[in-house]
Amino acid sequence: MLSGEVAPEMPTFLLACRRERVPRTPVWFMRQAGRSLPEYRKRRGAGTLLEAIHDPELAAELTLQPVRRYGVDAAILFSDIVVPLDAIGFGVDVVQGHGPVVERPFRSSSDLSRLRELEPGVDVPYVIETVEAVVRELDGTSIPLIAFAGAPFTVASYLIEGGPSRTFGRVKALMHSDPRTWGELTSRLAELAGSFLRAQVESGARAIQLFDSWAGSLSPVEYERYALPATSQVIESVRDLDVPIVVFGVGTGELLALMASSGADVVGVDWRVPLDEARRRVGSNHAVQGNLDPSICLAPWSVVEKEALLVLDQAGEEPGHIFNLGHGVLPETDPGILHALVDLVHSNGRAGVVR
Amino acid sequence: MLSGEVAPEMPTFLLACRRERVPRTPVWFMRQAGRSLPEYRKRRGAGTLLEAIHDPELAAELTLQPVRRYGVDAAILFSDIVVPLDAIGFGVDVVQGHGPVVERPFRSSSDLSRLRELEPGVDVPYVIETVEAVVRELDGTSIPLIAFAGAPFTVASYLIEGGPSRTFGRVKALMHSDPRTWGELTSRLAELAGSFLRAQVESGARAIQLFDSWAGSLSPVEYERYALPATSQVIESVRDLDVPIVVFGVGTGELLALMASSGADVVGVDWRVPLDEARRRVGSNHAVQGNLDPSICLAPWSVVEKEALLVLDQAGEEPGHIFNLGHGVLPETDPGILHALVDLVHSNGRAGVVR
Repeated sequence: MLSGEVAPEMPTFLLACRRERVPRTPVWFMRQAGRSLPEYRKRRGAGTLLEAIHDPELAAELTLQPVRRYGVDAAILFSDIVVPLDAIGFGVDVVQGHGPVVERPFRSSSDLSRLRELEPGVDVPYVIETVEAVVRELDGTSIPLIAFAGAPFTVASYLIEGGPSRTFGRVKALMHSDPRTWGELTSRLAELAGSFLRAQVESGARAIQLFDSWAGSLSPVEYERYALPATSQVIESVRDLDVPIVVFGVGTGELLALMASSGADVVGVDWRVPLDEARRRVGSNHAVQGNLDPSICLAPWSVVEKEALLVLDQAGEEPGHIFNLGHGVLPETDPGILHALVDLVHSNGRAGVVR
Repeated sequence: MLSGEVAPEMPTFLLACRRERVPRTPVWFMRQAGRSLPEYRKRRGAGTLLEAIHDPELAAELTLQPVRRYGVDAAILFSDIVVPLDAIGFGVDVVQGHGPVVERPFRSSSDLSRLRELEPGVDVPYVIETVEAVVRELDGTSIPLIAFAGAPFTVASYLIEGGPSRTFGRVKALMHSDPRTWGELTSRLAELAGSFLRAQVESGARAIQLFDSWAGSLSPVEYERYALPATSQVIESVRDLDVPIVVFGVGTGELLALMASSGADVVGVDWRVPLDEARRRVGSNHAVQGNLDPSICLAPWSVVEKEALLVLDQAGEEPGHIFNLGHGVLPETDPGILHALVDLVHSNGRAGVVR
């Protein structure tokens, strides 16, 4: 149990996900565990990201560091979207400053046989151990752990392109010209994500975030046809666990209503769409998460403060807002800025807040 | 004069920019002159992009190649957004496959003195020669040349970041924390763009496109405060030339109405916003240009055809649609696909078409 915490209450993060009233606006930051923290750089050492994820003691520590430092209202598992692929032996790595790299990219239906089912107890025991260690540490606090998985479209993008892409040309060529293989691929990735998330929740995680980072490269028609079905499949497969589910992507302004239709409870929004407009697009049955521009956090505090207050203002007074950045924390961010931001949100958030 | 052309008529491109009726939907492609063309790769040789731009004979040839091959309805000057900066000696280069690189980036108000005014006759005689050569070649056809310049925000981004950026952290820190310097910087870049465009139009270009490639990294509030004023300043400064003006950026879904308010005649739209929705956002006083996803052009023709027909359908029947891609042609694109696309658009476009 973290020092200084009192008896547990219903976590504000979970209340906001369910659009219930909250004592204060919950806040956490995507990539809050990361290179912006000196204690992270100290503990991570020279190993690869996957090596750190394979080490439960280290991964748990990295997950908890931002909770201790910032006083955020949720922890998120230190992980990466390629972890289940690595676990089933697809042959991936994550290169520092570059992103995931696939040794033999997915090119045709003959590659489908390389995607077997995930047996969490056998394939990702280290993830289960990490979750258990984090949950043990958070026991008695009101800070839930969020389970982590990549959404099928984004994972498929990496598999097909072989690494990060600016254009997604191969992905789009495959999805449009061989929709059968695409459907089978994303359905298998949905099963993989579902098993991976189930293991995390059964080990104590209390919410889920599906990262669909590159969904914003799709037109609405493409998203609806080629990404939404597999995302909905993941969500359907874990619905019985009764934990709130967040879906998030960047540049998804035109997709927000479709993302809301996936069955998720919360839609993450980047900074391009003001939250009042985002709320209109996702409708009153969904909470929103976001959306301060992470680049703003590189500016002096007076600027960050003004822009964060604008986000809180745009979030309005109705319940269902979790404050976050519109994308992950940038490595060069001053942790002092994020700490001050947590306090600002706690003092000034109004969405569903009972004072 | 190009072979096979008959007597000049009012160019369909210009008619569509002015939302007048057209005999067929005009079409051109951003980055139509480029590495996707074998004749381009053959003529470009090993020199840098700026070296090619400094060579009027070569630059004119590269500008005309796609007109000959594809039968597009407009030529666009072979250029780059950093050309005026290079011309006044700011110290920039364009690295193949990477983009513009600035030797000593703009960091504070003391760098303002490095931005002097452009004297086109002295500073960019090669651009004037290129324009004159292209216009001479196009004389007697109904194919106008589009003048080319970068919009102040995007040019400023390169100056400040020193090169391409994924996050624009330095740009945003400067604009928010020192709005006075930002305003002065973008105003000087607006003057530079205005002089550069005026020289092109006075030499025979008949339309203008302002490339604001990175505007989509801004929230609507940021765009309105920090990008729109200088874009409007450029447009105001060339309004007397009485040529249609297109503004274009990527990921600008939330900015389309603001871009329309700049004084431009046409708003370029990427593939993320369906054209019917884009038309609603820019309003009936503006034409739209776009918006087939360039990645789609890497798929088989049956896919390209279906998606292009969807774009034409979404463009509707009202006058004011210029077909284009939603971003530049990708280098790996098959020129045969683009040629077929021109024919498809000419046969199937319906916006304002009198048959």
